[in-house]
Amino acid sequence: MAIKLYELAAVDDARLFSPYCWRVRLSLSHKGLPFDCEPVRFTEKDKIAFSGQKLVPVLVDGAETVSDSWAIAEYLETAYPDRPSLFGGESGLGLARFATMWADQTILPGVMRLIVLDLWHHLAPGDQAYFRETREKRFGMTLEQFGADPDDHRKRLGKSLQPFRSLLGGQDFLHGAAPGYADYAAVSGFCWAAAVSEQTIVEADDPIAAWRDRVLSRRADAVASALRYAA
Amino acid sequence: MAIKLYELAAVDDARLFSPYCWRVRLSLSHKGLPFDCEPVRFTEKDKIAFSGQKLVPVLVDGAETVSDSWAIAEYLETAYPDRPSLFGGESGLGLARFATMWADQTILPGVMRLIVLDLWHHLAPGDQAYFRETREKRFGMTLEQFGADPDDHRKRLGKSLQPFRSLLGGQDFLHGAAPGYADYAAVSGFCWAAAVSEQTIVEADDPIAAWRDRVLSRRADAVASALRYAA
Repeated sequence: MAIKLYELAAVDDARLFSPYCWRVRLSLSHKGLPFDCEPVRFTEKDKIAFSGQKLVPVLVDGAETVSDSWAIAEYLETAYPDRPSLFGGESGLGLARFATMWADQTILPGVMRLIVLDLWHHLAPGDQAYFRETREKRFGMTLEQFGADPDDHRKRLGKSLQPFRSLLGGQDFLHGAAPGYADYAAVSGFCWAAAVSEQTIVEADDPIAAWRDRVLSRRADAVASALRYAA
Repeated sequence: MAIKLYELAAVDDARLFSPYCWRVRLSLSHKGLPFDCEPVRFTEKDKIAFSGQKLVPVLVDGAETVSDSWAIAEYLETAYPDRPSLFGGESGLGLARFATMWADQTILPGVMRLIVLDLWHHLAPGDQAYFRETREKRFGMTLEQFGADPDDHRKRLGKSLQPFRSLLGGQDFLHGAAPGYADYAAVSGFCWAAAVSEQTIVEADDPIAAWRDRVLSRRADAVASALRYAA
């Protein structure tokens, strides 16, 4: 039985936007594991009630049900040890977790500022109300206020990415000579943006743009089925 | 012939303060390689002229002379493959380089703001003039202006360390279950501070303080010979 991945979707099934779901999607491609996508909207949480919690991604692999993107990556690494490694061993796993935390706290908040209004625009009608209410409460301001002045937010994000830019002067991927989980954790913010927005996240001549393209070209199968509007 | 490490020193030989030299010192301890320290002051560059460049650290191992902390770590990993690994393989090396870039651009500038005046105070008289001139030019302001308002800088540094703090909720070291080069790159900023300053870098109840102590307790030999004033 094929692996099934429950992923967050916009009103259109092909706009899969959750960066955490993207991490799993790209990891499954890395491992060469085919899977079926089950799109889930914010207001369709009943679809994943069987997992015992309320958040996507949820992965179902035969008798195994795993939620949380990091837990799923660890599960895949353990369950499929003969497939290409996502972490490259114990030290790689520890350091990939750091890179993931860094992406969570640097890339994702920066991207959110840039795409929040476009994201809202693409959600299913019921999801729009849910998203607005929960996010405005979290941000302490309206979505319109939160998304105002994108040029300033792009500049701040660009500055916060400087350590990563420096790294790319010396190697092709976060993971080293080939992409690994750390790259998927970081690129997931760009996939999220591409799914729902035409905002520029980094300029085309930024080394980070070239890295993004290198990573995604290696995972073209996972991208093709999810980003057909973003080409 | 023992390995020789040329390290930046204050007026007192035992105040070895360069974070880049600390990375090598801790890496040599990690590998279990004894070494002799040759203290070098800013105005004693002639001591390392033989290396063909002007910056410490410089490592001399038999016929090999290597400068640049990252290049030295790679050299040690290659030259002593049977000793404990600093990187844990190819992926670990790639990710450790990222953690190092992050430390370079997050921890070191934040610590510099906090300790700059104490550091200047402990330099040899000739070095004080050199340091003031070069750093005031680099910072675009006086050392006194640069080091003003430490509480504000401590708060900013604390905030920028949040991804690292999150990581430490799930594992003991950047490198995973045991310290590696990434930990030495990050802790070097704390060693730098301890060598010349009594400023609080992170509060005692911060998980990062506990991590710092865990790392340095594993490298007690390297610490004891360099930080006897900081105990």
